[in-house]
Amino acid sequence: MARYKLILAYDGTNFHGSQWQKGQRTVQSELEAGLRKLGWSGDRTLFAGRTDAGVHASGQVAVFDHHWTHGDETLQKAVNAVLPADVRVMQLEPAADDFHPRYDAVQRRYRYTLEVTPVQDPTSRLYVWHVWPQPDLTTMESAARMLIGIHNFAALGSAVSPNGSTIRQVDEAHWQQTGNRMVFEIAGNAFLYHMVRHIVHVLVSIGQGKLEQSDLQLYLDEPDVGPAQGLAPASGLSLAAVEYSATGLKPVQE
Amino acid sequence: MARYKLILAYDGTNFHGSQWQKGQRTVQSELEAGLRKLGWSGDRTLFAGRTDAGVHASGQVAVFDHHWTHGDETLQKAVNAVLPADVRVMQLEPAADDFHPRYDAVQRRYRYTLEVTPVQDPTSRLYVWHVWPQPDLTTMESAARMLIGIHNFAALGSAVSPNGSTIRQVDEAHWQQTGNRMVFEIAGNAFLYHMVRHIVHVLVSIGQGKLEQSDLQLYLDEPDVGPAQGLAPASGLSLAAVEYSATGLKPVQE
Repeated sequence: MARYKLILAYDGTNFHGSQWQKGQRTVQSELEAGLRKLGWSGDRTLFAGRTDAGVHASGQVAVFDHHWTHGDETLQKAVNAVLPADVRVMQLEPAADDFHPRYDAVQRRYRYTLEVTPVQDPTSRLYVWHVWPQPDLTTMESAARMLIGIHNFAALGSAVSPNGSTIRQVDEAHWQQTGNRMVFEIAGNAFLYHMVRHIVHVLVSIGQGKLEQSDLQLYLDEPDVGPAQGLAPASGLSLAAVEYSATGLKPVQE
Repeated sequence: MARYKLILAYDGTNFHGSQWQKGQRTVQSELEAGLRKLGWSGDRTLFAGRTDAGVHASGQVAVFDHHWTHGDETLQKAVNAVLPADVRVMQLEPAADDFHPRYDAVQRRYRYTLEVTPVQDPTSRLYVWHVWPQPDLTTMESAARMLIGIHNFAALGSAVSPNGSTIRQVDEAHWQQTGNRMVFEIAGNAFLYHMVRHIVHVLVSIGQGKLEQSDLQLYLDEPDVGPAQGLAPASGLSLAAVEYSATGLKPVQE
């Protein structure tokens, strides 16, 4: 029996999120159903993070234990052969027996994509947020920098567990434009529920002149004035990567 | 009453093709249903070209006659407001009363996109053909050049009407790679049924060493040796543009 770490990509459109839910089509339930076809008899797979319905991933991390004698590459191909086309194992490698994709993660990275055109391209509608008029990139970038550091993000998301901490550390937050796409990338130790989508909604509102940078500063300084109104749609969001300590040292848990 | 020319983009995934068919969801039937909500009482809209189920468009051209007094930009917004999200009017402009999007077209341009990666990105699966191992671009480009000119393409497609001509003129045919995407663009006066998908299948087979350039030469020189086997999937294909004579002169019809 060995533990395997998977990098999963998925199109979140037709999933009720990543996490197992009774009677729902989720990424976890599809992965587990697929693994059972390969003789897996575990109870549950482990995922690095939970994504909502409609949210995509290019770098979700999942783990399962399995007895397999035909090599890692063959196992990756076998898992992909039993999975539906909207979820793929991009990488598969052995992991330490006690590796836990959620508890051991030291950083999560999300990417949010805006399409800034007068009329939305119908072939990208499930993977972007179509925004028009075009928000000002420099203003959004300037506002994004205010997020970096340790803040109480209670105005911009909800605690994942009841009475859980709403303090999070954001390591990176920046915008980049390529053609008609504006991509926001944010990395931090962990994120509150809906935090990235609240942040993007606030940043776009600032970029369109509907909010001021001082409004974001207030949300960060005085979280009780929240919650911020509005939520960027799930379609634009993707869990891009989950990072682990190269030393294998476990991060300190709150 | 005035005639309007529309540039349509659509995601072909959930359409039974572009052309009206009884009881089927097609681009034409959705456009007509939308227009009726705006008071349009015409019999039929006209389309430049027919696309199959699953084939996309960024530059389909359609025409309808309508009495509208609120300006072109307002009409474009009104049509988009009544259309489903998988079809959009990218441009709208008045046209001559006798403008016909099919008969007046002097050139059609199609784009076919390959994704060349070991594992398919699930968020692009509906818009590309995932091909692995990677075909050789130089070989495919060299083979593509053989298509340029006037040929009998009977081995690479079927006549649109019974006993119709299978002779077509290809003006451009070239490949371009950007990252993991290889894009084939082909332009010509008109195309046979399934012609672009047959051509792409042959070119990829040549690029992967499964066919020789001489096989393509044979299909062009001796159409009776066809039909060529295999068809590239609809998902990778998009009708990119339809061109009309700037002089307004009508092209000569066969």
